[in-house]
Amino acid sequence: MQVNDPGVLAQVDAVFDAYESALVGNDVEALDALFWDSPLTLRYGATENLVGIEAIRDFRKARPAAGLAREIVERHVTAFGADFAVANIVFRRAGQARLGRQTQTRVRMPDGWKVVAAHVSWMGT
Amino acid sequence: MQVNDPGVLAQVDAVFDAYESALVGNDVEALDALFWDSPLTLRYGATENLVGIEAIRDFRKARPAAGLAREIVERHVTAFGADFAVANIVFRRAGQARLGRQTQTRVRMPDGWKVVAAHVSWMGT
Repeated sequence: MQVNDPGVLAQVDAVFDAYESALVGNDVEALDALFWDSPLTLRYGATENLVGIEAIRDFRKARPAAGLAREIVERHVTAFGADFAVANIVFRRAGQARLGRQTQTRVRMPDGWKVVAAHVSWMGT
Repeated sequence: MQVNDPGVLAQVDAVFDAYESALVGNDVEALDALFWDSPLTLRYGATENLVGIEAIRDFRKARPAAGLAREIVERHVTAFGADFAVANIVFRRAGQARLGRQTQTRVRMPDGWKVVAAHVSWMGT
């Protein structure tokens, strides 16, 4: 299995960037399109555990749009073969000292690369 | 791509169980063998961000062996095709109310299923 094939990595980097823009702009429709439309999709957030795309959608709709901007401190994207990738970042919200971490597991589905599992947390001290 | 092929899921469940036993027993050698031996392997822990298998090994060697027992509250393992899987659990340590979450992204390498990225955190309130 090829790790980090440049063509695959370019695809995954592009969807990563699209997600980041949608997140910071709170573009709920774009965020939704980047997640796998399945009851098996998971998102463990800083203060919530969401199982299934419906729970993730409800969370996004209810989320305040302010204060989502963040600086990416570290970014690691790794692609395995042609259809699988994982993206990990460390981030900091404006005006906050604490570090956040985001892990996204992505699979290339017939309709494009989708996040099948996400985990976001604040690093404890 | 087939999701949750029973044969693949059985393999992934078996390595998940092996990891859980090794973790609770603090079997550092077994834990190490279940992670991908690569500088690209990542583990975001509750209080640390580890990049590369060497950093993960150093962390495990230095970790106190006590208090690692935990109850799994929720377990979700999903396999994508024959070579990729993600395992998500919610857990609780003995005598603690707070919930932990663990995400592991696994890839079937020539020498077996390996964790290529892990994220462990306490859920905030």
